[in-house]
Amino acid sequence: MERISSKTVHEGEIATVRIDRFRYPDGSERDREIVSHPGAVAIVAHDEERLWMVRQPREAVGEDALLELPAGKLDVEGESPLECAQRELEEEVGKRATDWREVKRFYTSPGFAEEEVTLFFASGLEEGEANPGEGEDIEIVEVPLERLDAAIEECVDAKSLVGLLLFRAGLGAQD
Amino acid sequence: MERISSKTVHEGEIATVRIDRFRYPDGSERDREIVSHPGAVAIVAHDEERLWMVRQPREAVGEDALLELPAGKLDVEGESPLECAQRELEEEVGKRATDWREVKRFYTSPGFAEEEVTLFFASGLEEGEANPGEGEDIEIVEVPLERLDAAIEECVDAKSLVGLLLFRAGLGAQD
Repeated sequence: MERISSKTVHEGEIATVRIDRFRYPDGSERDREIVSHPGAVAIVAHDEERLWMVRQPREAVGEDALLELPAGKLDVEGESPLECAQRELEEEVGKRATDWREVKRFYTSPGFAEEEVTLFFASGLEEGEANPGEGEDIEIVEVPLERLDAAIEECVDAKSLVGLLLFRAGLGAQD
Repeated sequence: MERISSKTVHEGEIATVRIDRFRYPDGSERDREIVSHPGAVAIVAHDEERLWMVRQPREAVGEDALLELPAGKLDVEGESPLECAQRELEEEVGKRATDWREVKRFYTSPGFAEEEVTLFFASGLEEGEANPGEGEDIEIVEVPLERLDAAIEECVDAKSLVGLLLFRAGLGAQD
């Protein structure tokens, strides 16, 4: 299929909506409504004993304290996913890491939204300086590895579940 | 936190955008941009030897044939997630199932979108009648269980990854 036109129908701060027109191999054409998104990163930051997560309010889904991996949007011009992940890990949980591995890229809701998440495993952790953004209310959560399944059970955020489950499966741990 | 007002700023066919205002425990108030969504279902339909997936074009992310679990939106008035999952499984892969288990509910992108996915495991499969909707171009994919890790590697759709990884972990298989 081929994108033959694109029209912005709503320009929001985060949620910009376009109607794009596509032509298919059989010659037919259809419009699709698409929510634009710059992409995001998420990080499984761990040592041999624990991993670090966060709890934060998520107004869109009416949750006061959703358990998630440290994560953030690619909203700084020119910043790579790795640089964004390094910045977010330090801002949100106050850690730096010496070993970074890109494990997976995936779409959060490919039926209507562009958002692509790049998932990293980070280890070799060192103390950094937590610095949540203005208006961000983030609690740092240490999860002992023996409580990994309990964290998976509590977690209801897709990107974090993918990260925790890949980590649990040992997938992505190899080169 | 408490939602104190809500205003629709864009009404689309799928993507409706609201700006909701929230009041926090400290008394402060903030606006949040939220993409409305009716919710969705996804199904790991399997027997002892294989599971069933689909490949379909996903225009929003520029993919001609994304490997996903059978899934669909809760867009029929009054239909429960289970009824929606039963309908979608038959429409998309032509199967009915006698055993249904709700395994997990999760949000695909809780930072800005309401979408909640209810994930089911379905077994006791019987032949039904595939009936994709108009304009849907869906290929049915049989995945032998010994190829599960290869499917996880190919898959780049968050809800499907959560389903495949929970199935692989044997999580949700118990009551």
